[in-house]
Amino acid sequence: MNNFDFYNPTKILFGKGKIENITDEIPEGAKVLMTYGGGSIKQNGIYEQVKDALEDFKVVEFGGIPPNPEYEVLLDALDVIKEEDIDFMLAVGGGSVIDGTKFLSAAALYEGDNPWELLTEHNRVEEGLPFGTVLTLPATGSEMNSGAVVSRKETKEKLAMGGPGLFPKFSALDPTVIRTVPERQLANGITDAFTHVLEQYMTYPAGGHLQDRFAESIMQTLIEVAPKVMEDQSDYEIASNFMWSCTMALNGLIQKGVPTDWAVHAMGHELTALYGIDHARTLAIIAPRHYEENFGSKKEKLAQYGERVWNITEGDMDSKATKAIQKTESFFHSLNIDTKLSDYTDNYEETAEIIASRFKERGWLGLGEHENIDPDKVEEIVKKAY
Amino acid sequence: MNNFDFYNPTKILFGKGKIENITDEIPEGAKVLMTYGGGSIKQNGIYEQVKDALEDFKVVEFGGIPPNPEYEVLLDALDVIKEEDIDFMLAVGGGSVIDGTKFLSAAALYEGDNPWELLTEHNRVEEGLPFGTVLTLPATGSEMNSGAVVSRKETKEKLAMGGPGLFPKFSALDPTVIRTVPERQLANGITDAFTHVLEQYMTYPAGGHLQDRFAESIMQTLIEVAPKVMEDQSDYEIASNFMWSCTMALNGLIQKGVPTDWAVHAMGHELTALYGIDHARTLAIIAPRHYEENFGSKKEKLAQYGERVWNITEGDMDSKATKAIQKTESFFHSLNIDTKLSDYTDNYEETAEIIASRFKERGWLGLGEHENIDPDKVEEIVKKAY
Repeated sequence: MNNFDFYNPTKILFGKGKIENITDEIPEGAKVLMTYGGGSIKQNGIYEQVKDALEDFKVVEFGGIPPNPEYEVLLDALDVIKEEDIDFMLAVGGGSVIDGTKFLSAAALYEGDNPWELLTEHNRVEEGLPFGTVLTLPATGSEMNSGAVVSRKETKEKLAMGGPGLFPKFSALDPTVIRTVPERQLANGITDAFTHVLEQYMTYPAGGHLQDRFAESIMQTLIEVAPKVMEDQSDYEIASNFMWSCTMALNGLIQKGVPTDWAVHAMGHELTALYGIDHARTLAIIAPRHYEENFGSKKEKLAQYGERVWNITEGDMDSKATKAIQKTESFFHSLNIDTKLSDYTDNYEETAEIIASRFKERGWLGLGEHENIDPDKVEEIVKKAY
Repeated sequence: MNNFDFYNPTKILFGKGKIENITDEIPEGAKVLMTYGGGSIKQNGIYEQVKDALEDFKVVEFGGIPPNPEYEVLLDALDVIKEEDIDFMLAVGGGSVIDGTKFLSAAALYEGDNPWELLTEHNRVEEGLPFGTVLTLPATGSEMNSGAVVSRKETKEKLAMGGPGLFPKFSALDPTVIRTVPERQLANGITDAFTHVLEQYMTYPAGGHLQDRFAESIMQTLIEVAPKVMEDQSDYEIASNFMWSCTMALNGLIQKGVPTDWAVHAMGHELTALYGIDHARTLAIIAPRHYEENFGSKKEKLAQYGERVWNITEGDMDSKATKAIQKTESFFHSLNIDTKLSDYTDNYEETAEIIASRFKERGWLGLGEHENIDPDKVEEIVKKAY
C-alpha cells in the first residue's frame, strides 16, 4: 500500500426531505448566490424546495450554467459575485453546476488578472468562497470532492483544477430527485460513476486489499442497481444506493494508497472538447480500447475484477481479463451507451492525430499509472475507438 | 436506506515515516500536551519520533493513561492542561489513550463543576480543545471518530461520550508500529475491529446495499490479514491493510443509512467494568451468544454474512446463519481469544443478574437495533456466555 493523506470535510445530508436541512448549514445572515443550470429544477419541484429552505437569506440567482461548464458563462457569474458582495454560494444541479461553482469559489478569491490561470497553472486551491450543493443528478461525485473541470469553447479546451479549499461545506443528497432525471442522463450518470471507479482500480496490484474491495463493492452495487433504476426511477431503495455509490465512487476514499490511471478521462475530455460528446459517453468510447491497448500491464487487475465483479470463474488470467473488458463494454451497451466514436460523429478520421498533437503541445507526455502512455500511444488508443 | 448525516473532518496521514509530518498539522506556537500510556512508546522508538516531530513546540508530557482510561487519572491530566495553559493535545497510543484525550478535550472546555456529567448526561460535545493522534495500536477506530469510552474504578462504571467537537484534527497511522505490538493486543485489535463491523451490520436487511458490501469488505480483509499479521508483524502490506481496516471499521461510514446494534458493546463494557477483562475479549464472549439469542430477527443478515464473508454456499437460511455464528466464534478462537466468561473469571455465577440490575437502574431498557433487548433478555444472553 502506498503512503497517503486523506481529508474530506464535506458534510453529507442524505435522504428524502433533506433539502430543507440546508437552512441550518448556511452561515446566518449570508448573502447567497444560487447557481443552477438550464432550468429543469423549475419543472421538478427542486427550485421551490431550495427557495423555501433559503427563505431567511438574501438570495441572488444565476441560472444557465451549461453542461461542461463554460468559462465565458462563469465569468458573468463572477461579475455577479463581486457586484453583489456574495458570501456563500449554493450550487443546485449536477456535476457541471457544482464544478462551475467550484471554479467561482476559487476565482472569487483569486488575486491574478486572468482566472483561466486557475485551470492552466495547476496550483492547488487552498481557499475558496464557501459553498454548499444540492445534488440533482448523481454521477460525477463533485458533491463530495474538491476537484472541478471547466470547458472553454473559444479554445476547445476542457481542463481540471482543484485543491483542499474547494470541498463543498455540505451537500444535500435526496434520492427522490432521481424520479425526474431524463433517461439519457441517468445512463450517463451510471457510466460516469462506474468509470470513476475503474480509473482508480484498473492499474496493477499494489497491496491495497481493502481499497480494492471497496472499489469492487461500488461497481457491484452500480451493476446491481443500473437496470433497476433505468426501469423504475421512483424505486427509493434503488435510487438511494445509486446516489450513494456515485458519491463514494469519487470522494477520494478508494484512490488512497493505490495507483490511479485517469488516462481514460484525459482522452475522453478531448472528445468532449472537440465534438461536444457527453462526458460519460466519451469514457465508454475510450475505456475498453485503453484496457485492450494496455492489456499487459493491467491484466492482473482486469482478471481480479472479472472474477470478483463479473463472477468470471473459468479460464486463465488472460482469458478472464479479456472477458472482463467484454463484460464492461456490454454493460455500457445495456445502458444504450454506444462505445465507438463513429457512433457519435462522422468527422472522426483525424481525431486520434489531433488529440495526440494537443497532448504534445501541452507537454503531457506520460498518462496512466505508469506515466508511459505517450502521445503516440494515445493516437493508437483513440484510433482503435473509431 | 435510512436518512443520515455524514461528517468526518479528521485528516489521515497514512504510511511509513508519516509521524514526522505531524509537525505541519499542529498550529504554530502551540503549547502541546503529549498524552500516552504505560510507556511502551519509550521502548519501540515511537516516543523519539514524536519528540523529534514536536521539536519546535513547547511540550508538556502526561504519561500513564491506563487501558480503559480511568477517570481519576484523567482528572490529574485536566489539572495539567489548566495549570500549563495547553492549547493543543497529541495523543500517542491506542484507543485508551485517544479516548482519554477526547475526554480531556471536552473537559478542558466544560463549564460545569463535575466533568463526570460529560459521561452521564449524554449531551453531544460540540466543541473541544483541539488534538491530534499518533496511533500505536490499530483496534478501536478512535483515531478517526468522535466517540470515547471512559472508566471509573470507584463506581465500576464504563460509559461513552462523543460529539462533533471530538474528531481528532489529524491522525498519523504508520503501519510499522505494528512490529512491536504484543501478540495479545494484536489479537484484541483484530477482534475489536471485527466486532465493530458486526455491530453496524448484523441487524436486518435495510436496503443499504453499498454499506453492506463495505462492511463485508472490511470483515473479509480482517479475516485475510489476521493469521498473517499474527505470524509476521513486520509484513508491511499486511500491517497496512490491518491498520486501515481497523480505522474504516469505526469512522462512521459503514453505519450511515443502516440500523446498528451495539448491544454487544453495552454488555461487554459491563464485563470490563466488573472484572477488568480486555475490551475486545468481552465482545468475543458476548457476540456469539447475542446472535444465537436474537437469531430470529438477525438470521437474514447472518446468512448473508455467512455467504459473502465465509463463503458458506450450502444449506437454507437458518443453516447458513447458524454456521456463520460458528465461523465467527472459531475466528476468535483462532486468535487465541476465549469466548466463555468462565475462561476469564471463577466468580461469574451472579454476573448476569448484576448486569441486568445495573441496566435496570440506569433505565437502559431496550438495547439493540429494535430496542427490545430488555434487562431480562440481557440476563439470558450473559448467562449463556458463562
